[in-house]
Amino acid sequence: MSDLHIGLVGLGRMGGNMRTRLRAAGVEVTGYDRDPKVTDVASVADLVAALPAPRTVWVMVPAGPITESVITELGGLLEAGDLIIDGGNTKFSDDMRRAETLSASKIDYIDVGVSGGVWGVENGYGLMVGGPDEQVARLMPVFDALRPEGPREEGFVHVGPVGAGHYAKMVHNGIEYALMQAYAEGYELLEKRVDLIKDVPGTFKAWQRGTVVRSWLLELLVRALEQDPELGDIEGYVEDSGEGRWTIEEAIENAVPVPTISASIFARFVSRQEDSPAMKAVAALRNQFGGHAVKKADD
Amino acid sequence: MSDLHIGLVGLGRMGGNMRTRLRAAGVEVTGYDRDPKVTDVASVADLVAALPAPRTVWVMVPAGPITESVITELGGLLEAGDLIIDGGNTKFSDDMRRAETLSASKIDYIDVGVSGGVWGVENGYGLMVGGPDEQVARLMPVFDALRPEGPREEGFVHVGPVGAGHYAKMVHNGIEYALMQAYAEGYELLEKRVDLIKDVPGTFKAWQRGTVVRSWLLELLVRALEQDPELGDIEGYVEDSGEGRWTIEEAIENAVPVPTISASIFARFVSRQEDSPAMKAVAALRNQFGGHAVKKADD
Amino acid sequence: MSDLHIGLVGLGRMGGNMRTRLRAAGVEVTGYDRDPKVTDVASVADLVAALPAPRTVWVMVPAGPITESVITELGGLLEAGDLIIDGGNTKFSDDMRRAETLSASKIDYIDVGVSGGVWGVENGYGLMVGGPDEQVARLMPVFDALRPEGPREEGFVHVGPVGAGHYAKMVHNGIEYALMQAYAEGYELLEKRVDLIKDVPGTFKAWQRGTVVRSWLLELLVRALEQDPELGDIEGYVEDSGEGRWTIEEAIENAVPVPTISASIFARFVSRQEDSPAMKAVAALRNQFGGHAVKKADD
Amino acid sequence: MSDLHIGLVGLGRMGGNMRTRLRAAGVEVTGYDRDPKVTDVASVADLVAALPAPRTVWVMVPAGPITESVITELGGLLEAGDLIIDGGNTKFSDDMRRAETLSASKIDYIDVGVSGGVWGVENGYGLMVGGPDEQVARLMPVFDALRPEGPREEGFVHVGPVGAGHYAKMVHNGIEYALMQAYAEGYELLEKRVDLIKDVPGTFKAWQRGTVVRSWLLELLVRALEQDPELGDIEGYVEDSGEGRWTIEEAIENAVPVPTISASIFARFVSRQEDSPAMKAVAALRNQFGGHAVKKADD
Repeated sequence: MSDLHIGLVGLGRMGGNMRTRLRAAGVEVTGYDRDPKVTDVASVADLVAALPAPRTVWVMVPAGPITESVITELGGLLEAGDLIIDGGNTKFSDDMRRAETLSASKIDYIDVGVSGGVWGVENGYGLMVGGPDEQVARLMPVFDALRPEGPREEGFVHVGPVGAGHYAKMVHNGIEYALMQAYAEGYELLEKRVDLIKDVPGTFKAWQRGTVVRSWLLELLVRALEQDPELGDIEGYVEDSGEGRWTIEEAIENAVPVPTISASIFARFVSRQEDSPAMKAVAALRNQFGGHAVKKADD
Repeated sequence: MSDLHIGLVGLGRMGGNMRTRLRAAGVEVTGYDRDPKVTDVASVADLVAALPAPRTVWVMVPAGPITESVITELGGLLEAGDLIIDGGNTKFSDDMRRAETLSASKIDYIDVGVSGGVWGVENGYGLMVGGPDEQVARLMPVFDALRPEGPREEGFVHVGPVGAGHYAKMVHNGIEYALMQAYAEGYELLEKRVDLIKDVPGTFKAWQRGTVVRSWLLELLVRALEQDPELGDIEGYVEDSGEGRWTIEEAIENAVPVPTISASIFARFVSRQEDSPAMKAVAALRNQFGGHAVKKADD
Repeated sequence: MSDLHIGLVGLGRMGGNMRTRLRAAGVEVTGYDRDPKVTDVASVADLVAALPAPRTVWVMVPAGPITESVITELGGLLEAGDLIIDGGNTKFSDDMRRAETLSASKIDYIDVGVSGGVWGVENGYGLMVGGPDEQVARLMPVFDALRPEGPREEGFVHVGPVGAGHYAKMVHNGIEYALMQAYAEGYELLEKRVDLIKDVPGTFKAWQRGTVVRSWLLELLVRALEQDPELGDIEGYVEDSGEGRWTIEEAIENAVPVPTISASIFARFVSRQEDSPAMKAVAALRNQFGGHAVKKADD
Repeated sequence: MSDLHIGLVGLGRMGGNMRTRLRAAGVEVTGYDRDPKVTDVASVADLVAALPAPRTVWVMVPAGPITESVITELGGLLEAGDLIIDGGNTKFSDDMRRAETLSASKIDYIDVGVSGGVWGVENGYGLMVGGPDEQVARLMPVFDALRPEGPREEGFVHVGPVGAGHYAKMVHNGIEYALMQAYAEGYELLEKRVDLIKDVPGTFKAWQRGTVVRSWLLELLVRALEQDPELGDIEGYVEDSGEGRWTIEEAIENAVPVPTISASIFARFVSRQEDSPAMKAVAALRNQFGGHAVKKADD
């Protein structure tokens, strides 16, 4: 039980679930959302007015311009000693810039990378936190309410100063991309040999205990294959989000080789192309030196 | 409790542990090993003589020539209706060839991919099986004894005909390579930013609950980092085994793109090179067109 | 002018052009082809009968079973001291096996990797030769007739013993794949920025002199873009041939990292897929943990 | 013969050679360099004073802060109608920003990607130009003096508006990286089979005529191998420059898959590491699940 009372901006899928989980743990939450059906107060200003000082506002809205505008608004409403927490998928360098700006008003800033997706409301959210020690310590009841059951250090980490939380989340997502691609390549290798592999879903299912590759993503793939054993209803079209791209940028910036993470992102790029300009160029080249009709070339 | 009595050739780290686990489950096992300290009988012939018909011999020796010679010897000793199980890391095409040869003597053959390493004796072994239905059914008490606790289908699968078990294990290992490389790239991305990431081991530790990337391999990495937080005692030198290579060969053979699995294997190749001939060639090229001293080139 | 008289089996696009080029250089050629319109003799046996001892027969038919059967037939017709040359795209290990077999009849064997495609009849063919020194020396007038004008060592090489010629050609083709892919990636990078890059064909054209990337493949890409500036008539569908695949297999066998060559081949695999099983699996995974509709997922 | 008179800031290896080539073509050049031994005037201000209006100053200094400061200084000295040309390896987005800033003073800006390295003084430089049509047209005598002999469009291109020249050069260098890596992988494949490939330098030499892979880079590799047939004096340590990295960033930004270009850059990153943190992590993982000593692990 905690006597913390925080504000929460953004009550969508993630924020709404987090409010539920926080309240269940005894944290008082005043939530604001543009949607009048879910909001507790009429405006961000009302939210700020409803909070006891020092105020804490957790921002849980889409990363980018929306988060930027909410934090700018909050920066004008909050006072010295207050705290803004960004729990969205913000780029770590934006955290650093914002914290710098807010420090002029002595408003503190914490960035939290939140993992867990729709499962978080039930399982808890993995939390990676960046920011000043004393504020992180003060907010611990909030983090404890959100993180999964079990030892705190298995679902929560104070990674470092401002930016570190989202940096860690960015790397987490980069890894996630490559893990998914790894299972996907294995899936295709099995699926291709229908002559030999008579039970593709059963093979993944049997990897859930005892094997080296067991993981939560594997369990999700098993679920997916139980619902649709040949993935017949799913198109091989995959979006990517900022974190994956930033991971590559950071890798390049720091001269870290990331062949599997980059391969995973490139595979997603290809998956969204109707036709590949690059492969048109290769086809054109083969046609030129081989003298063959396109699509019939050999060299 | 089972009334099965099987022979087991090879009582090393894997075979020895499996004998222990089988006996604990009430399966009678007569084991043979070249090492007189661990063997139950003096020779393969004695092993065969000790078994009730129809005989079942599980071969658990290093893949390649040793397995080949043991199976050839067994082929000469066993009779119609008997069964050889190869639980080693055999290439699936070798299984097919051997089953064909043994079928002339009406000796059956089952291939089993076994995952779990040194943890298997305690946790059970993930089992991927290829072979004829009736023999797989007859051996089920053996598989049940070896596989992990829990629902059978989460630690055991009858993948298909002969070869399918080792094919599935090969793909499992290919995936495993890419999973390991994914975490490793993430590790380097975190480790490189010592200015920002103040707790690399703690970050991995915190990913164990609630996050998308949680897995058994992650738990092992956490263990490794608890023992040696900067991996200072470990050289970045990594062997690879047959399964990873065969995975690439099969991918090529079946036109399956496997960018992350191949990247993982190439990273291992590079890790073992004192200097890279390829990169010497690149350095030489830059020197030629840039006119710079080698190691000081720009273009 | 040479007094050599050789047989040539296979008078298709490659073989027919080679006969032309050889005769123009004064080498006497008796050609055989199944197509009565182009053949000089009625059968392989007639071809052999038409040649002076020691006989030399250059085989220029599709690699694989057809080459295999022609060489087997020749092996039965030729005598000690005769020579078979395989100029097709044979796998180097097949050369070694055949040479071993033919050596029982004291028939020599030379493998020649031939590059140049349809341009060869005019420009000459790049030749990579494997086989015994004295036979290579004896055939030099043939090689000189086929290779491009200029210094012999810039268009011909005796790489090593039997198999070395096709090994070198295999590596040549592996490199070729990656070179093509490199230009193709550059093409897509330029083509994507229509807002900035106002002349994609002109950019490639301007790289033909003075730049680091100038090459024959670049010239071919310029030709292709002159014929079809947006490659609108070409589908991004690209076949691959044996050499590329064998290059990867050899790389794996010899622990040589080949990230660009493998990436080039995987890109071709993907280019031929209507939908990607692997990306269906990734999409399914994102759907599972993100709880989103497929194609609308984010994490 | 031209009556153009331009200023040139930076008389190092590139700028100095360009002055030579320009003067040989009849372009009047006043050069400035910090090095009193090579400079024509004492300061940038003196350079500007020496030029007829409208003034043209070509900046050929290292990209980054040095170029930035030179252009800022020039911006304060030049007048409406004057022109600054940046011929260095500037990022295209910096060109856009600078042109925007200078436009307030009605100073024009052209960016030129220059390829050719130390060979340019003799062979001419490949030129990729971005900027306004009329200024590009006015400067054509300068471009004609610098570019290689032959048709203008084979060594010069006006790619588009400001930034387009350096964008094209960036892509050129990205391609270059992958081309070099492709030959390098081929080199290692040949070099590894000393049992079979008896003449590695000779093989590359023989690819110079008639083959698909012939190129200027191939010629340079032949030169390097003639000087040092086993590349024994060269360490496999390779720097990378901004253009390669920016190419990846642009690819990510525009969702263009660039597997060979990224693989080339990652190979360079690895080449500079004494030990790989990532591979230490993989070794640690194998040790954990296999229970083997590090460096002796198998799974």
